[in-house]
Amino acid sequence: MANYFSFRNLKFLLYEVFDAEKLTQYEHYRDHDRQSFDMILETAKQIADNILYPIYREMDEKEPDLVSGKVAVHQGIGKYLKAMGEAGMIGATYSYEVGGGQVPATVYSLASFILSAANNAASMYTGLSSGAARLIINFGNQEQKDLYVPKMLSGEWQGTMALTEPQAGSSLSDVSASAKPLGEGKYLIKGQKVFISAGEHDQAENIIHLLLARIEGAPAGIKGISLFIVPKYRIENGSFQPNGVVAGGIYHKMGQKGTPAMHLMLGDNNDCIGYLVGEPHQGLKYMFQMMNEARLGVGLMSAAIATTAYYHALQYANERPQGRRLNEKDQKTTPQTKIINHPDVRRMLLFQKAVAEGSLSLLMECSRYFDLAEVSAGEEKAKYQMLLDLLTPIAKTFPSEYGIKAVSEAMQVFGGYGYCKDFPIEQLYRDIRITTIYEGTSAIQSQDLLGRKVTMQNGAALMALMQEISQTLQEATTYENLKKYAETLQKELGRMQQVLQKLIPFAMQGNYERFLADANLFMEMAGLVVVAWQWLKQAVVAQKQLLTQSLAESDVAFYESKIQTMRYFFAYELPKTKWLATRLLDDEVITIVEAKAEWIV
Amino acid sequence: MANYFSFRNLKFLLYEVFDAEKLTQYEHYRDHDRQSFDMILETAKQIADNILYPIYREMDEKEPDLVSGKVAVHQGIGKYLKAMGEAGMIGATYSYEVGGGQVPATVYSLASFILSAANNAASMYTGLSSGAARLIINFGNQEQKDLYVPKMLSGEWQGTMALTEPQAGSSLSDVSASAKPLGEGKYLIKGQKVFISAGEHDQAENIIHLLLARIEGAPAGIKGISLFIVPKYRIENGSFQPNGVVAGGIYHKMGQKGTPAMHLMLGDNNDCIGYLVGEPHQGLKYMFQMMNEARLGVGLMSAAIATTAYYHALQYANERPQGRRLNEKDQKTTPQTKIINHPDVRRMLLFQKAVAEGSLSLLMECSRYFDLAEVSAGEEKAKYQMLLDLLTPIAKTFPSEYGIKAVSEAMQVFGGYGYCKDFPIEQLYRDIRITTIYEGTSAIQSQDLLGRKVTMQNGAALMALMQEISQTLQEATTYENLKKYAETLQKELGRMQQVLQKLIPFAMQGNYERFLADANLFMEMAGLVVVAWQWLKQAVVAQKQLLTQSLAESDVAFYESKIQTMRYFFAYELPKTKWLATRLLDDEVITIVEAKAEWIV
Repeated sequence: MANYFSFRNLKFLLYEVFDAEKLTQYEHYRDHDRQSFDMILETAKQIADNILYPIYREMDEKEPDLVSGKVAVHQGIGKYLKAMGEAGMIGATYSYEVGGGQVPATVYSLASFILSAANNAASMYTGLSSGAARLIINFGNQEQKDLYVPKMLSGEWQGTMALTEPQAGSSLSDVSASAKPLGEGKYLIKGQKVFISAGEHDQAENIIHLLLARIEGAPAGIKGISLFIVPKYRIENGSFQPNGVVAGGIYHKMGQKGTPAMHLMLGDNNDCIGYLVGEPHQGLKYMFQMMNEARLGVGLMSAAIATTAYYHALQYANERPQGRRLNEKDQKTTPQTKIINHPDVRRMLLFQKAVAEGSLSLLMECSRYFDLAEVSAGEEKAKYQMLLDLLTPIAKTFPSEYGIKAVSEAMQVFGGYGYCKDFPIEQLYRDIRITTIYEGTSAIQSQDLLGRKVTMQNGAALMALMQEISQTLQEATTYENLKKYAETLQKELGRMQQVLQKLIPFAMQGNYERFLADANLFMEMAGLVVVAWQWLKQAVVAQKQLLTQSLAESDVAFYESKIQTMRYFFAYELPKTKWLATRLLDDEVITIVEAKAEWIV
Repeated sequence: MANYFSFRNLKFLLYEVFDAEKLTQYEHYRDHDRQSFDMILETAKQIADNILYPIYREMDEKEPDLVSGKVAVHQGIGKYLKAMGEAGMIGATYSYEVGGGQVPATVYSLASFILSAANNAASMYTGLSSGAARLIINFGNQEQKDLYVPKMLSGEWQGTMALTEPQAGSSLSDVSASAKPLGEGKYLIKGQKVFISAGEHDQAENIIHLLLARIEGAPAGIKGISLFIVPKYRIENGSFQPNGVVAGGIYHKMGQKGTPAMHLMLGDNNDCIGYLVGEPHQGLKYMFQMMNEARLGVGLMSAAIATTAYYHALQYANERPQGRRLNEKDQKTTPQTKIINHPDVRRMLLFQKAVAEGSLSLLMECSRYFDLAEVSAGEEKAKYQMLLDLLTPIAKTFPSEYGIKAVSEAMQVFGGYGYCKDFPIEQLYRDIRITTIYEGTSAIQSQDLLGRKVTMQNGAALMALMQEISQTLQEATTYENLKKYAETLQKELGRMQQVLQKLIPFAMQGNYERFLADANLFMEMAGLVVVAWQWLKQAVVAQKQLLTQSLAESDVAFYESKIQTMRYFFAYELPKTKWLATRLLDDEVITIVEAKAEWIV
């Protein structure tokens, strides 16, 4: 079994950096302890090692196709869904009353991470079921919960998100699938949905689409969209009845080929029934819950793919001899050195490690806020929710944008071999490319961050984040060797404030286009700053351990490498903010279309 | 036929920016004129449109395989080789006496660009034949020239470069294929070569490998390597005789699938004869000529792929409605706008245009130096050769590194559709990824730039480049609206000097590892500066036209878009030097292995 992630790093984050055991003090998590947490990770690792990792290449090579309306996917998916269901892993975070295990997201996110690291295409199936089930749990009625949730959590039924339409794409307000009331919460659904992942396959008995549509006569725009359960088979008198959901096409993707992306046609023969979830016209609000979860899921998947690629590259660099070190006097007869000893290869590896582990740390921070919001109340709850809302677009975008670059650097470490099917790098390179598109492109995330999150409640979320970061800065300054980095990060916070002072007035003037024109650059800046924060946070813990504990040699190496990677991030990556701020503070307008402009020939 | 490049832009560069007609004043090019140049481009376009572009997707979908030692590639390759041979396009730049057309490289590089834009995998075949033929022309004896060159230039025989070995990769000094003298310039060859593009296929009668091997008893290292012609079939008494070159394996690549990359086994049965080219032990020196040409070829191919992707993205952005402009008051009922009107999409398109056209301009500059070195003598010749040598690693690395990002942005413009096989973007994304690896990775190029080229002859090449850039700065300052950009670029030259003053002392101290540890970052900085120079150069010409000519509307749009793209590059890309310089001037050493370091767990 190849080494595709580090258990040591997961436990470092879980117990040393984010102190997950503390969560067990809360009533909601009282049945858990370190042992049960470990068991969840071990379960994930077993499923990953035994079922997922071995079929990763096969799922890509034997890409499923649509034949007579059916899609036969790899049979390992059936085994996987069954194993996950039996282990209680699909609904692990849900409450006992709906069959969940009340596992903290902080722990569960690492289980998801392991599954994605082993086989990102396969992990999509359960991630989608889990998210779809949560929508029903939170907003469905009792009958819906009883009918759908247990089957979805057992892995027998597949869940999906059915949002995107051909003419709407990122613009959800233009969703046009229609729903005609039939009474008793039933609606006749008509429309098309595209890019529906796991939207049709043969390894689940039924597929439950959580679908957005517009009830006849509903207001235009986002306030007229409702949420429906649309099963592939509806249950009538206890038996399966085809429900007018037709797989009209399958997308052949560059990567993640093992997860079919479907084009679905609904109700062409007036035979598709949807069941309203919650109140009419509240669909987008409900769906945003699933989307936010899914966004964190995409971030996590990106970090996982980057991690797998990193471990492959690391192993190769440790084994492959090539050339001599540049200071070697005798270039002719000295044996070749391992490529890991070349500074440039080391730089590429440090980049990958910094991205993969920095991203994961940021996602753990989000999970922690999620858990704390779950168990707290009042102002405290609001604070954690706000922090989570603010960080979510960043925690989707940084891992995906930088993850793509990290996997590219992993390929570069392999040279020509990395470009060939001899190693899994080329598949990882293809797979990860979707992540800046899934669940809202980077542009959508960036507009969400700058246009909504940063400014919400008069910047209260940003203030709360600054306080969180300040706490890390204080801790860091107590260590002589970390002081310098704390000062650097402090300055970066100032730089970000400066940029916001430049940009926010445009919003106040109602010039949103100018305000958000370079939102993607602001996003990159924010990503670099919060990931630098996560690295400093990890370095503080590592430094503490190095000073106070008597450690095994391997632990010393582990903690030193954490500090080394933090140093890398501050030296090579964080200074990109200088470039970004230069642009963001510049008055020259370039990308906004003026009336006369007839550009680009 | 899709629009995959702009003829208007090629002619702008050829005649307006680089004034190719001036070359016809030289004796060597005296038979040419604008008409003959145009005809060469038209010929390339016809072959590209009629033969190459239509089979671009097919060559990828029907990937060739190795069956019983043979590789059947797309039959279009045979047609292509024939058409190119008949049109005199393979050896167009060579002298009349060897059957060439004495076409300036400045013109020919655009013909290659057109072919690569249509089908980068196919264009590899002729590029390799052309480069291999040049080696024989320049260093082979008359018999070799007579036997091989005409067949290679007619497209009947395929040429290859056979350098890489399994244990050597980038480290050519470790080449170990052996050559045992048989007398009369013949040698018994034994060894293995890997990643040999077009190393075996069925659309050429014969394949002529230009191969590096070590004559028995030769000195170790790079000074013991010789160059051989190793044909697939040797000619004995006028008939083909198998020559012990066995296709032992084929690499299945992520992209450029239409060009088989072969693992070749030579002389396993003592039956492989190689013919020494030139003097013994001079092989690497000879091969470097081909490699330098090939490096520019890879740069050109990268610019071409980025261009094709850009035109696809541009067309999509002009057709696809999605969302509303952010300043639109009525978001509900206003019809959707074309995505090209969103600032972020426009930013991504400008990035692609800036990279594609800026790279091509840099490559044209290199071709011009190549031509001027060809026709001049003495100090002038030396100057142009020096400029070419200095720019070659940059002109390979910037287009490939930034080209990969540009195609990724093209995919992002398409959203989910770009990730699917419905559009050619995903293939372009896979194809272009090889370019930072081919012909020396970016790390190798960067060490060449900083470690050799910048410092050669006490920095004379860099001085010469500064003078060239200064000339553009002077011209730019005569236009009020370009002054600001000239000043910015002037400052950037100072920044680069500052970085060199920091780094060169390490080389003087013999600490090459420290000197070159961040050579890749210096490379990126140098790339940004010289491409900014190319953009300013283009803007000067565009501005001159806008002020002095009475222009058609489409020309006004063309020139304005050149100035707009220059502004984009200076505002968004060039400021990256601030980040790069911050790191390059930093004293913190991070990537150099110390004795104790047992890093990365």
